[in-house]
Amino acid sequence: MIKDTIRIIVAGPRGRMGSEALQLIDRTAHFDLVAAIDRKNGGKRISDIDGLPSSDAVIYEDAKACLNEVKADVLIDLTIPETGYKHMKLAIEHGVRPVVGTSGFTEEQVKELENLSEEKGVGAIIAPNFAIGAVLMMQFAKQAAKYFPTVEIIEKHHDQKLDAPSGTAVKTAQLIQEVREPAKQGHPDEKETITGARGADVDGMRIHSVRLPGLVAHQEVIFGAPGEQFTVKHDSFNRASFMSGVELAVERVMKMDILAYGLENILE
Amino acid sequence: MIKDTIRIIVAGPRGRMGSEALQLIDRTAHFDLVAAIDRKNGGKRISDIDGLPSSDAVIYEDAKACLNEVKADVLIDLTIPETGYKHMKLAIEHGVRPVVGTSGFTEEQVKELENLSEEKGVGAIIAPNFAIGAVLMMQFAKQAAKYFPTVEIIEKHHDQKLDAPSGTAVKTAQLIQEVREPAKQGHPDEKETITGARGADVDGMRIHSVRLPGLVAHQEVIFGAPGEQFTVKHDSFNRASFMSGVELAVERVMKMDILAYGLENILE
Amino acid sequence: MIKDTIRIIVAGPRGRMGSEALQLIDRTAHFDLVAAIDRKNGGKRISDIDGLPSSDAVIYEDAKACLNEVKADVLIDLTIPETGYKHMKLAIEHGVRPVVGTSGFTEEQVKELENLSEEKGVGAIIAPNFAIGAVLMMQFAKQAAKYFPTVEIIEKHHDQKLDAPSGTAVKTAQLIQEVREPAKQGHPDEKETITGARGADVDGMRIHSVRLPGLVAHQEVIFGAPGEQFTVKHDSFNRASFMSGVELAVERVMKMDILAYGLENILE
Amino acid sequence: MIKDTIRIIVAGPRGRMGSEALQLIDRTAHFDLVAAIDRKNGGKRISDIDGLPSSDAVIYEDAKACLNEVKADVLIDLTIPETGYKHMKLAIEHGVRPVVGTSGFTEEQVKELENLSEEKGVGAIIAPNFAIGAVLMMQFAKQAAKYFPTVEIIEKHHDQKLDAPSGTAVKTAQLIQEVREPAKQGHPDEKETITGARGADVDGMRIHSVRLPGLVAHQEVIFGAPGEQFTVKHDSFNRASFMSGVELAVERVMKMDILAYGLENILE
Repeated sequence: MIKDTIRIIVAGPRGRMGSEALQLIDRTAHFDLVAAIDRKNGGKRISDIDGLPSSDAVIYEDAKACLNEVKADVLIDLTIPETGYKHMKLAIEHGVRPVVGTSGFTEEQVKELENLSEEKGVGAIIAPNFAIGAVLMMQFAKQAAKYFPTVEIIEKHHDQKLDAPSGTAVKTAQLIQEVREPAKQGHPDEKETITGARGADVDGMRIHSVRLPGLVAHQEVIFGAPGEQFTVKHDSFNRASFMSGVELAVERVMKMDILAYGLENILE
Repeated sequence: MIKDTIRIIVAGPRGRMGSEALQLIDRTAHFDLVAAIDRKNGGKRISDIDGLPSSDAVIYEDAKACLNEVKADVLIDLTIPETGYKHMKLAIEHGVRPVVGTSGFTEEQVKELENLSEEKGVGAIIAPNFAIGAVLMMQFAKQAAKYFPTVEIIEKHHDQKLDAPSGTAVKTAQLIQEVREPAKQGHPDEKETITGARGADVDGMRIHSVRLPGLVAHQEVIFGAPGEQFTVKHDSFNRASFMSGVELAVERVMKMDILAYGLENILE
Repeated sequence: MIKDTIRIIVAGPRGRMGSEALQLIDRTAHFDLVAAIDRKNGGKRISDIDGLPSSDAVIYEDAKACLNEVKADVLIDLTIPETGYKHMKLAIEHGVRPVVGTSGFTEEQVKELENLSEEKGVGAIIAPNFAIGAVLMMQFAKQAAKYFPTVEIIEKHHDQKLDAPSGTAVKTAQLIQEVREPAKQGHPDEKETITGARGADVDGMRIHSVRLPGLVAHQEVIFGAPGEQFTVKHDSFNRASFMSGVELAVERVMKMDILAYGLENILE
Repeated sequence: MIKDTIRIIVAGPRGRMGSEALQLIDRTAHFDLVAAIDRKNGGKRISDIDGLPSSDAVIYEDAKACLNEVKADVLIDLTIPETGYKHMKLAIEHGVRPVVGTSGFTEEQVKELENLSEEKGVGAIIAPNFAIGAVLMMQFAKQAAKYFPTVEIIEKHHDQKLDAPSGTAVKTAQLIQEVREPAKQGHPDEKETITGARGADVDGMRIHSVRLPGLVAHQEVIFGAPGEQFTVKHDSFNRASFMSGVELAVERVMKMDILAYGLENILE
């Protein structure tokens, strides 16, 4: 099956995620980089910038000018929330479908963008997390909790991480809460002989945070029931793991005429 | 929430699964054992049989007599396919919803039972596998394969198992085949320096069968993609793992008026 | 290689561990059950007792009489500490090598038994833990910690367990302490946004205790270092896991003329 | 404890392993880079080369000149076998302890270097594998196999790997062979319904090779016995994992006056 070419503008091409996106476009036959939006380097070409793929696409500092002058189907925005919000509005107004990676928008901003998207009939995707594996883990955990309400989460990260539990672990627990009655787990009379052994308590569920040098980002959600153990696990080894989600979002947004918030809502 | 009592007949009460079912009923407040159907011990009570729970329920050798004389909501049948088929027909005709654990019915038998169930408006469930964990593993594996088409299966069993790969592993691979294009995995030029290293080949997917004393029944389905690994895993430690599926089936069949084949079709 | 027959007396034959030991002897060609010591059933034979293997071995209620009348090489004692202590003394005095499973002896008792064993030149083994797998896990963890000082322990048990962390996890941490400088792990500025997330702190090492229905007894010791993760893991599924240690102890004690405390001291 | 400074020459500073070694020296307080040996860039300084750490150490193209002119304690050689062999001889003759990473020397070369090392009383280390985690995994597997002779190996690598099983898996099996009687594993009558399911057969042990995109280099050695499972596992995420072995070798070689082959021989 030959797929139609999708013309893409990337905002934030020099960032860590942005440069991964350029490589994704570079290696995907029917993706075509038509321009980039950057805070500097206006007028240069992508191939002029050290470390970026060879591409003739022109860099714009002015997003509006870019969207006016370049014919595009999709805008991938991997900048900061403030900029992303502006770009997203501009894109929808120009009939270009935005795919934006951020968890930084306010509820009001999301609402406004939803309305704009619907009004213009221009599909749009906002994704707080582009790692399909992480999103599937959370979705499956929520689904499994309907049948296995007794669950603990172990998340393991490198020892440079500041917060415990991880945001993903907390999000997973929240999703499980939606389908599970709060229930204290473990024996009713259990005792911690050393404080903290039983982990963080979320409505009776327990979260355990391991921090070790060498690790990257790993989580397993473990369900126990008489005679069995059920586990959903995700290991993220590097940022390349986000790109399958970006790729999927670009494909899907082409067939959408409203806004979707969260990758889970574009998974079939 | 107080649940309505469900009156249950168990066929095959002395079998390994059947005796687990008696215990399930015994410990579930709103399940009530009202009779049993057995090849022998007609006229005795369940509590007369060594190793079975204390219950006054009477044992019948004649299924028809049992269904005529005892008021019941559900028949749990854990006998052999031939007997199960007869019991299932009788139950539906008597307006008792059958929950039957077997993979041994012919397509014709299933079809006939489906028609009968629909005609009488009496719900019925046939489940080749009652372990919810195993069923979820297969369902999630199929779903994940849409996004991660590169997958290998490792199944581990005790070393008294005769066949490799296990039936569950083959079934999992077949479900994945439904959503995945056949594709040879591994490097195109990869070489086995010792035959068999790369496992069993199913349409390019690989299955690996570990057999070790001490193990019970374990399977993990591993998906790989750039920068990440996604895993769904099920460990079955003993037969108790089947009972959560029986419990769910009993609850669900009370709200059904047609036949469902496979636990996956009654999961929400 | 044909092995010389080892004649064995079992004390505590009806206990959970004792009956496993009878089965071990039953299935091991060169092990011969010659008598049993029990609080009751004196004069009966093992085969007279329900649930025990068929064996002509006679049951004694009086340990001294048993040791006087029956020619034996080894006494396996799986009773309570008080009884075990008396049996052990008697056995050594009769030139029968004792293999005793307990962590309940006082230091003085162990010292006294050591002296007696050396004086008589009769080998003896006291083992607080007969699971070779658990003992190897602890030994390897201690050895690995010399090279990988950053380590966390995850132990998982059924939810009927009262204490957290488990005794084995604490013992493992103590063994690691012997070869590791105390060092706080994780980022110096890390914060628990939910208390307990980072687990129990032992000299900077972290222990995480998972409690779920269906689980049995599982522990993994995880070492992290730049670019790598090293793990030693033990899963105990049932009491049969203790029998390989009993078997090893019986074989080894035949070649010993002093007392060894702890299975780790008879591993090569 | 303040450690004495160790003066180090690195041969092969621009290679993938060599540049990691430069970073190791850079971040280790008592390691001092005093010179480098390279095929080109003679006369330049390390800091002149793009991507290398800032260091004044001078680059030599002539190893002999380097060893004559620069006072050093240790030579880390991460070049090719042919060059490594020459460097190693030169170093020993100059009283500089070589640490060489290669599996490419002939038996005769190793023998000759052993003799030279002993004659001069200059310690030396040749390591086919610098990953301490991998070496520990192999050592522990060999030790565990004495007690648990039934074992299977699962190794998982990225899908660009050409050979299966991996060299480490085969080496592990060989080490286990040294302590284990050959024995066919699995049920005597087991049948592969799909060829290859039971993996590669080495004296009855089974090796399974998983190849998936996203993975790096992972191996677990799984031992089964009645009622238990014992596992030793190593995950290598990137080349940094080799540097703990290089660091250890540099420390140890300072106290040696003979040659050691294999990291396992310098582990305590």
